[in-house]
Amino acid sequence: MPKLKLSYFDFHGGRGEPARLALHIADVAFEDHRVRGPEFRELKPELPYGSLPVLEIDGIIVAQSTAINRLVGRLTGLYPDDLVQGALCDEAMEAVEDARHLLGPSFSMRDDEKKAAREALADGALRNHLGCLQARLAQRGGKYFADQRLTIADLSVFVLTRYITSGTLDHIPTDLPERAAPLLLEHHDAVKSHPKIAAYYASR
Amino acid sequence: MPKLKLSYFDFHGGRGEPARLALHIADVAFEDHRVRGPEFRELKPELPYGSLPVLEIDGIIVAQSTAINRLVGRLTGLYPDDLVQGALCDEAMEAVEDARHLLGPSFSMRDDEKKAAREALADGALRNHLGCLQARLAQRGGKYFADQRLTIADLSVFVLTRYITSGTLDHIPTDLPERAAPLLLEHHDAVKSHPKIAAYYASR
Repeated sequence: MPKLKLSYFDFHGGRGEPARLALHIADVAFEDHRVRGPEFRELKPELPYGSLPVLEIDGIIVAQSTAINRLVGRLTGLYPDDLVQGALCDEAMEAVEDARHLLGPSFSMRDDEKKAAREALADGALRNHLGCLQARLAQRGGKYFADQRLTIADLSVFVLTRYITSGTLDHIPTDLPERAAPLLLEHHDAVKSHPKIAAYYASR
Repeated sequence: MPKLKLSYFDFHGGRGEPARLALHIADVAFEDHRVRGPEFRELKPELPYGSLPVLEIDGIIVAQSTAINRLVGRLTGLYPDDLVQGALCDEAMEAVEDARHLLGPSFSMRDDEKKAAREALADGALRNHLGCLQARLAQRGGKYFADQRLTIADLSVFVLTRYITSGTLDHIPTDLPERAAPLLLEHHDAVKSHPKIAAYYASR
């Protein structure tokens, strides 16, 4: 195994969490570098795109979360070998990014503007997008997004669903997945009860 | 080779263009489905995420442009075999997506608001982002984003640089790459003069 150092913020979620989960599931040793605010400000100028996560692999820095998640997926056996199944795994990860980009602009808004924008997302674009993710999951059999087994795509969607249901996103109803895409909530619950994932969160 | 149908809008650019270029470079036969406005409105309800491009491969639909570009890159030999070089190829493609997401919200703005938003991007976030892309290119030797050879990442960045310099983006100065990231412009010119790419655009 290569020498790995994954740098990301110190909370259970976000763009760096799927890679952390995959490495834990596969029992792959890595330096789990948890970055706090002051350190982030110091690190930022050295980061390829000014943001986290970054993965150092045998001394080479890789940026961009989806690139990192795929690399870690390949290292841990959580990425399909098959060309088309790999693309379906990628498709779901990109769809998760789209959801994050839908929410992105609202983070820098004043609270009244944020409330309006997020309520519009919850009734419109985000709701529809979760419906699209659900439909793709249903087309693949309803349990996994690709390869009929757990892949890095499932971890990525799990982290998104967990985020939306967590209550940390003001003005986004926590029951949005339940109402708009109940199959995504079932998927979330199934991933959460994976023995390695349950043990990981129980231990922290 | 699998049976391929790539559906995307009928113009030289955008999220579907890198896959079209890759298929042409590798002389891989595919159905080049060019979608016009009225047909898009008909197709939209059937598209996995309501958007183009989509790739049909042996009857299976794959959505999300980066997923499609990677699949086509793997089919055409324009994606690295090496794990880390593959991740650096992915990183650049994701960075192109970030640039598109920076511009995204401005498309639905009124013209005065659009002008202010895009001028701010050209002096700020977009300018910085092009600088980051340039720095990554420089770190890899200045010619290619990964694997020291032409990959789908180079086609993806080429299409972005071409877009910004084309003049089709109101209020984004066409000389922004020249001023903010001259190495990206050199990279653009080198990709553009690739014999297969030059012949492709000359023929259309």
